[in-house]
Amino acid sequence: MAQPPIRHAFHRKMSPPPDRRAGPSFSQDRPSPLAAEFDPSRRWNSIQPGADMYANPSLRESARAEIAALLGRAHPALAIPEYVGTYYAIVPLEAQPTPIFGRAGPHGLLYKGVSASRGSIAALLRIIGAPPAPSAQIVRAGEAWKRVRHPALLCLKEVFTTRQFTARSTASMVPTNEVVFVYEFSSRAETLFHVFLNPTTPDHRYHPLPEATLWAIASQILSAVAVVHSNRLALRDALTINRVLVTGRNRVRINCVGLSDAFDPSGGDHLPATSPRATTTNDRVSALQKGDLSSVGHILAVLALRIDPKFVRSGSLLVPEDVAVEAMRRLTPYSEDLTVLVMSLLSAAVPTSQVTTNQILGMIGPRLALELGNVWTHTDSLENMLFVEFDSSRMFRLMGLLGFVNERSDAGVEHQWSETGDRYLLKLFRDYVFHRVDENGKPILDMAHVVECLSRLDIGSPEQVLLSSRDGSSLIVATYEDLRRCLLQSMDELRSAGHGLPNR
Amino acid sequence: MAQPPIRHAFHRKMSPPPDRRAGPSFSQDRPSPLAAEFDPSRRWNSIQPGADMYANPSLRESARAEIAALLGRAHPALAIPEYVGTYYAIVPLEAQPTPIFGRAGPHGLLYKGVSASRGSIAALLRIIGAPPAPSAQIVRAGEAWKRVRHPALLCLKEVFTTRQFTARSTASMVPTNEVVFVYEFSSRAETLFHVFLNPTTPDHRYHPLPEATLWAIASQILSAVAVVHSNRLALRDALTINRVLVTGRNRVRINCVGLSDAFDPSGGDHLPATSPRATTTNDRVSALQKGDLSSVGHILAVLALRIDPKFVRSGSLLVPEDVAVEAMRRLTPYSEDLTVLVMSLLSAAVPTSQVTTNQILGMIGPRLALELGNVWTHTDSLENMLFVEFDSSRMFRLMGLLGFVNERSDAGVEHQWSETGDRYLLKLFRDYVFHRVDENGKPILDMAHVVECLSRLDIGSPEQVLLSSRDGSSLIVATYEDLRRCLLQSMDELRSAGHGLPNR
Repeated sequence: MAQPPIRHAFHRKMSPPPDRRAGPSFSQDRPSPLAAEFDPSRRWNSIQPGADMYANPSLRESARAEIAALLGRAHPALAIPEYVGTYYAIVPLEAQPTPIFGRAGPHGLLYKGVSASRGSIAALLRIIGAPPAPSAQIVRAGEAWKRVRHPALLCLKEVFTTRQFTARSTASMVPTNEVVFVYEFSSRAETLFHVFLNPTTPDHRYHPLPEATLWAIASQILSAVAVVHSNRLALRDALTINRVLVTGRNRVRINCVGLSDAFDPSGGDHLPATSPRATTTNDRVSALQKGDLSSVGHILAVLALRIDPKFVRSGSLLVPEDVAVEAMRRLTPYSEDLTVLVMSLLSAAVPTSQVTTNQILGMIGPRLALELGNVWTHTDSLENMLFVEFDSSRMFRLMGLLGFVNERSDAGVEHQWSETGDRYLLKLFRDYVFHRVDENGKPILDMAHVVECLSRLDIGSPEQVLLSSRDGSSLIVATYEDLRRCLLQSMDELRSAGHGLPNR
Repeated sequence: MAQPPIRHAFHRKMSPPPDRRAGPSFSQDRPSPLAAEFDPSRRWNSIQPGADMYANPSLRESARAEIAALLGRAHPALAIPEYVGTYYAIVPLEAQPTPIFGRAGPHGLLYKGVSASRGSIAALLRIIGAPPAPSAQIVRAGEAWKRVRHPALLCLKEVFTTRQFTARSTASMVPTNEVVFVYEFSSRAETLFHVFLNPTTPDHRYHPLPEATLWAIASQILSAVAVVHSNRLALRDALTINRVLVTGRNRVRINCVGLSDAFDPSGGDHLPATSPRATTTNDRVSALQKGDLSSVGHILAVLALRIDPKFVRSGSLLVPEDVAVEAMRRLTPYSEDLTVLVMSLLSAAVPTSQVTTNQILGMIGPRLALELGNVWTHTDSLENMLFVEFDSSRMFRLMGLLGFVNERSDAGVEHQWSETGDRYLLKLFRDYVFHRVDENGKPILDMAHVVECLSRLDIGSPEQVLLSSRDGSSLIVATYEDLRRCLLQSMDELRSAGHGLPNR
């Protein structure tokens, strides 16, 4: 049978608290912002053929959240170490330690930190107290899992031990050497439970999840499971509704990989040897891998039956699995394909079962092909957004060049350099771009005008622009081609200035 | 058996000629720029586990090409109509008409045009002369194919007739009403033949394609084939090495869909009824769909055997298909999985074959799952690039605001407005950002400094900056928070100026 879901949520939310200088203050009960993106009443959420089912309406906010996380610092009163390992800007993401496997056993506390070598954010899971397993086993599990890379996993980056966390708080005692698991960070992640199953969100009871969402989740998880299994590993406890995170619209990632192996009470003998040449999968691993398949089936069954409190409550299945499959068939709007997938996955829990990951993938081949099309559609729309943004960054660069040239009066250039010759033309152009007024003398603050002028400057268009001196006494006609030449020429002069040109 | 490949390349290149004001001047013999991206000697081309195998090293150039295509205009001497249907900015992409199915039969000429309603570029395939099929058949094919959307197709957008192309050139005669097929446009597309099989690229003979590339091509094409077949259609002549286009690294799209149906000599009776309710697939369509599978097998066999001129010359298979499969098995480095896929696809050509598209997809389920991971990795790296570009567009906006405020001396604001109060601080900040000099008086032209200053301004950081008056006589300490407040306040004043403030 599949492992029962862990009842104590862990990593409910990996993003830092809203006030980035506040301490950990995450509220468990506030509604999931990601759940809103699955609200079937929103027009943009309906999945049209050919539309991008992964479109993220708040991508810009995600980008900002990531920058905020990168720049965020912990409140000084929290006594957080400045550095932990090679990570700085440590901020706790949870108010207090949560159990990793259940009430008993090791507890963990999640932090974010910025890697000093890469400059990127990582999630640091600190295991409180002395490591609960021999260090050789933890190292072996860490080495095995660091090799596994897949976009539906928050991958393990490294495992290290540190006394930094305990050095300050227990000044009188010898600091404990604690183990820290470093994972990829996602600035916008909530658990499957929080997004889809939280009983405090009444909406969940009335809306079955769209079948396309279930297939998206199934194919991402199974694609990751296949890669993990081909590495002769098993995801084990990472495959629960509290460990699988939703990180975007219809996008999931499995978190906390490797913990089950690192802290396995029966030791790490089932783990693959560090030499990647050994290719045999031992019986223990085969059994664990079948457990993974049945865990995926369990997750899908819970999500499929979420509308009916007779079958699912607080994310737990209340009935035997065969009853759940029968309920899926009779009571839900889902296709027979999906029901058969769930049934086949759950059947892997039977000890005599011979079902393999590849068989499951073969079974859903046509769905995977469809899903592949959906993801390519998503890449196409991301690429289109990128093309638009590339424009902005070209404009930004041009504006920077104008900034370097206009209104200079420093020691580096001739007296009145910015007011004469080519630069005078560029000054009048700057006035034309930014300082326009309407017939009533009201400033025109029109970013579209700025973008249009700079686009023409960028390509050096042959179109003409009428520039007027500040007192209005003289008018000059210039093409954007001329202006572009002036700008490049002026930049050349600036680059060679300070060496050849006389200072004022 | 599969259709023999068309010997006369069509749509070798869809991007406009380099000089956008020149007429059609495409050279067939210049090397493929896309082929260079598959050069196995380039370091970034090696596919690491977890790396983005679809990363496009020249994405910025693609964006520029797209803008150039959007802004491009035909040379006036070419006598191109200004408008065709609802499309303007018409530019021919080919020097002369090329046959569509073979030497005989209809000829086509490709143009690009900008949609007046959507503002986006489209590829216009003009069929020269009177339509070679009854208009009812063309309309029926057009309606059926317009419904098919898939990211591995350049989809059909519309079909219309026009006298515009012939109106000018044959002024004395009655203009011919020609039919135009409008497709999605790709600014960077070359045929599979041109990129991978062109005998003038000697490189092809020595390097077998990476197996990952073959799987990428196979899974994209088969995913599109599945969607087409589920619409009770078949791709037919569109599945050849001269119709499948490479539009990015490891990325393909099938072009010219629907032409075989529109001009089918036996009429369009096999096409699905316009009512989407009819669900039966008739025998003719089943046979054509099996033909599609064997065409995919043919394409893959040709690509797999490209290194050996005994088997493949100029993109044509020189041996029977069973010999080709045997050669793949004995002479190439590819996996048995790939050989079995090609063999199964080719077997669909046997009249008694019962193989279906879904069976093929089930067979390669595990590969599709792997491929799904690769595409998600690609979306992740696109998203990361997007986050960086979002930054630029925020910086661009801020620079625009500074431009509106700094150095104003127009009728809209008080005399000396830009030199006093908050604006004076912003002027000194502008000098600090753009007009720095080093100890030798040499201007520091450092875009990174600009970005850093503006990032801090954007978030209103509490950090301090030391601003100096132009004559160096006074120093002012301000936080970025202060400066941000000054900027927003000044923008507010500008917005209300011209109404309340006295003019100078």
